[in-house]
Amino acid sequence: MSLVVIGSVAFDALETPFGKTDKIIGGAATYISLSASYSVKPVKLVAVVGDDFPQADILLLQEHGADTEGLQIKEGEKSFFWSGKYSNDLNSRETLVTELNVLADFDPVIPDSYQDCKYLMLGNLAPAVQRLVIQRLINRPRLIVMDTMNFWMDVALEDLIATIEMVDVLSINDEEARQLSGEHSLVKAAKKIMEMGPKFLIIKKGEHGALLFHKVKETLKIFYAPALPLEEVFDPTGAGDTFAGGFIGYLAATDDISFDNMKRAVIHGSAMASFCVEKFGTERLLNLQQEEIEAREKQFADLVEVIPATSAQPA
Amino acid sequence: MSLVVIGSVAFDALETPFGKTDKIIGGAATYISLSASYSVKPVKLVAVVGDDFPQADILLLQEHGADTEGLQIKEGEKSFFWSGKYSNDLNSRETLVTELNVLADFDPVIPDSYQDCKYLMLGNLAPAVQRLVIQRLINRPRLIVMDTMNFWMDVALEDLIATIEMVDVLSINDEEARQLSGEHSLVKAAKKIMEMGPKFLIIKKGEHGALLFHKVKETLKIFYAPALPLEEVFDPTGAGDTFAGGFIGYLAATDDISFDNMKRAVIHGSAMASFCVEKFGTERLLNLQQEEIEAREKQFADLVEVIPATSAQPA
Repeated sequence: MSLVVIGSVAFDALETPFGKTDKIIGGAATYISLSASYSVKPVKLVAVVGDDFPQADILLLQEHGADTEGLQIKEGEKSFFWSGKYSNDLNSRETLVTELNVLADFDPVIPDSYQDCKYLMLGNLAPAVQRLVIQRLINRPRLIVMDTMNFWMDVALEDLIATIEMVDVLSINDEEARQLSGEHSLVKAAKKIMEMGPKFLIIKKGEHGALLFHKVKETLKIFYAPALPLEEVFDPTGAGDTFAGGFIGYLAATDDISFDNMKRAVIHGSAMASFCVEKFGTERLLNLQQEEIEAREKQFADLVEVIPATSAQPA
Repeated sequence: MSLVVIGSVAFDALETPFGKTDKIIGGAATYISLSASYSVKPVKLVAVVGDDFPQADILLLQEHGADTEGLQIKEGEKSFFWSGKYSNDLNSRETLVTELNVLADFDPVIPDSYQDCKYLMLGNLAPAVQRLVIQRLINRPRLIVMDTMNFWMDVALEDLIATIEMVDVLSINDEEARQLSGEHSLVKAAKKIMEMGPKFLIIKKGEHGALLFHKVKETLKIFYAPALPLEEVFDPTGAGDTFAGGFIGYLAATDDISFDNMKRAVIHGSAMASFCVEKFGTERLLNLQQEEIEAREKQFADLVEVIPATSAQPA
């Protein structure tokens, strides 16, 4: 069930109402890889960092199941760096610094040992680079999941659409789905986006949960995964990537891409994301126990559970 | 299981991106009563209109199960009138006209035949008037559900809190819960609001569904009812009232106020509200069939259904 993940491995500096960090390890592929590692190992990483990236952080990824053969280290160059500050309610954030550095001309290299890739996770990156990875795999993976963001809709729409066409599952948030489709209704948006290629669409709605859509001929299937109402969100950074990592990790581990199993994968990804936001950066993802993951998944199940009435009830 | 409903019976003039109406029948108690009537009859109405209110509309309410003995008709006065215009995405609305008219000095009269009230629904009104109804019932009902809105938080907070203290279930939307509690986190907001008196709290999140909270000693129970993703919302007017009517109607008909049954009542209310928005005003609520209500409830159940994995799965 070989899983390959591409995305950024980077430095983040975060500021939330609860405090701020110096440069800490971040990046889409970091969160995806850590999250997926609780379901499947190894997670074969395709990414690029500069020589400023600490060996200790690479070791950390390896200790958490990452195969880093596909992680390029560019001598004399600097790693991607992003710095952001969240609003008091954590619902919006301002980008303070974006230094592309090594990402500016990232040319992904697929090691031979990655050519058995069955599950491919395209973390948020320039869509042209995401597409290169698909093209450089000799055999088409069983499932390709793609994450992206509104930025690429603004600056690289053609590339984005060309890449979306090639994937099985697209994962975006509600505002992005509206922007990409030009439709306000998420049902209409989902239909339009699935006409672009993907058979499955995940629309992430943050604290309101996530929707999974699947179109089979003329039938639109919809699954609504709630979000766990949380007393405290500490740092939302990486929640979407952690969700994606949990989602594809679950699918790779179970090797079942039916709609029913995707529902379970969405719940698992949601549970992983709910851990992520409890601490700064990747901290909470480093030492989770299987028991607490299962307990969290049970909380998601309990949240929507309705016991049917036993006696005859009015409609 | 006598159900008493108080609230406005009024004229609305609506403008949505899909069209506009002249003055049509509206008001919280109208929507509540129509919606509840699919579960229980009669719905004993406490409200006031002017002599401009058409006899045909009163007949319409009666034909849909309303007992109008508690409906006062004020000679020489005019009915409450509200006119509003929705934004293109229907997510916000602008009030064009509010004429209180008969509502300005509404003094609710409880007919003797209403004194068997077991279930009391306080539709959105001045909280002092809502409280009067509780005080004028000789026996305390088994369950009191209260709906309100941010307007009363701005102009009558003390009255509002005094009324909230007396009810069992409060139903408000997410922004109102945040305003009332001063907490952004809905979990924290729910805890604070339930400390004001209600043992149950419903937080309505529009297209994102609804949360039902219940605090038993130190344990907080949460139920997340999804909203059905709709292709088209035609007119959101009355959706919250229709939800409330479906909720209390279901409880009155089943005469079971356990948390488990309240979950079913929330789903039933959500299903009723999903019909309401399909047409202008009350139109869709006038001729529903039990079969389509049950089918809609089934859609809500299917939306969140996850079939547990049969074989051993990774967490």
